[in-house]
Amino acid sequence: MDKNRIKYLRSLHQKKFRQENSEFLVEGNKLVNELMHADFEIKNVYAVNAEELDRGSIEVEHITPKELDRISTLKNPNNAIALATIPEPRMPDMDTIANNLSLVLENIQYPGNMGTILRLANWYGIQHIFCNAETVECFNPKVVQSSMGALYRVKVHYTDIYRLVEEATNLPDFGIYATHLEGQNLYETSLSSNGLIIIGNESQGLSDKISSMAVQKIKIPSYPPEDTGMESLNVAIATAVTVSEFRRRTME
Amino acid sequence: MDKNRIKYLRSLHQKKFRQENSEFLVEGNKLVNELMHADFEIKNVYAVNAEELDRGSIEVEHITPKELDRISTLKNPNNAIALATIPEPRMPDMDTIANNLSLVLENIQYPGNMGTILRLANWYGIQHIFCNAETVECFNPKVVQSSMGALYRVKVHYTDIYRLVEEATNLPDFGIYATHLEGQNLYETSLSSNGLIIIGNESQGLSDKISSMAVQKIKIPSYPPEDTGMESLNVAIATAVTVSEFRRRTME
Repeated sequence: MDKNRIKYLRSLHQKKFRQENSEFLVEGNKLVNELMHADFEIKNVYAVNAEELDRGSIEVEHITPKELDRISTLKNPNNAIALATIPEPRMPDMDTIANNLSLVLENIQYPGNMGTILRLANWYGIQHIFCNAETVECFNPKVVQSSMGALYRVKVHYTDIYRLVEEATNLPDFGIYATHLEGQNLYETSLSSNGLIIIGNESQGLSDKISSMAVQKIKIPSYPPEDTGMESLNVAIATAVTVSEFRRRTME
Repeated sequence: MDKNRIKYLRSLHQKKFRQENSEFLVEGNKLVNELMHADFEIKNVYAVNAEELDRGSIEVEHITPKELDRISTLKNPNNAIALATIPEPRMPDMDTIANNLSLVLENIQYPGNMGTILRLANWYGIQHIFCNAETVECFNPKVVQSSMGALYRVKVHYTDIYRLVEEATNLPDFGIYATHLEGQNLYETSLSSNGLIIIGNESQGLSDKISSMAVQKIKIPSYPPEDTGMESLNVAIATAVTVSEFRRRTME
């Protein structure tokens, strides 16, 4: 592989260059295999051993372990790396939003949390996640890695979440909820099957801006409900427990 | 600070030396502050600015930013670092186990998962976590960091978990549960308030050994319950959703 190509692929470790070029990297046999069956445009697939991939008709270019090491974002690269186009998912219309349960992320910072949220959203059949621009970019290599392929199935939209929440306020049979330490007990709150669940920043929680909008604040009660010494749950954990309760009620 | 001291403190980044010396490091103002109010034996507290700590009667030794950088396990060290003795929590007796909900971890590997599990255990009032020797050590700096102080309150026991499960089998009004992809729907399973919840390895799940014991296998249903394309939830997420459901039932 020529030096400029390696340099280009390495540049995609950085958000700036991913956005400039609308391309991102996917690593490891498992994720690359899944990518080849997903609805993404693949530019190149590189592998040390092409036989380890179920590549179908896709051409796999041979690279040396040393080249893999140079391109990879991982400490222990795993055979394959693919270059794919960053899709621009079309914003769903208000009708679609009105008939689904979706997530809204405000200022989520850590790639590991974002990846875990994507994975649980996929598990719980959430199709759309709306993020403000300050939320970590979902094509960050650590998000791609920790989402375990959920990124291929859940659509992530970077958009004006405040306008979205505003517009959703008047939808019928639709709830707008936000996890909040001062909220109402999740288990004692009536939950709509369709709605938005807003998740705030890891250490700051919700912004005043979104907090002051017409959202219903809910809290996951600790056990016992008195002081446990902990201030909060991890943000992905809180999201999972909340979404899980929404789905449990629907399945009842 | 003399060179040998720095060398010693740095050696505690490694499990081998933590275990040889029964000492571990705690980093950052917040965690060091909490440590000073916890039931742990503190050997030393070092800080660049002692005033940033609410130290009470504990002597804080001044270090330079450069020294902090050398001792720290973090990319961006945060002012303070403490050296504390690794406690040896006494195994609770069978009576205590019989009257509580506790976790059993088998081969949990990632420090971040362990820290998150500690944090949620604390939130949900779980006092004891039993781990096999292959589970990541809880005084690993990444576990300490991600547990957000839960490590000061929840007791972690490295023990023969198989014997423990065996012995717990005959306790009255007590359930032994394990999260398992082939298990019964969590929401359709009758759950005891007291019991053990067994969590298996991140990629392998439960071992055959523990799987073949008298444990009730439960599964968190996806939504819809048919194939979502995801194989599983992250292990800390699955633990949270499960424990949360146990506590919800008790509070009902």
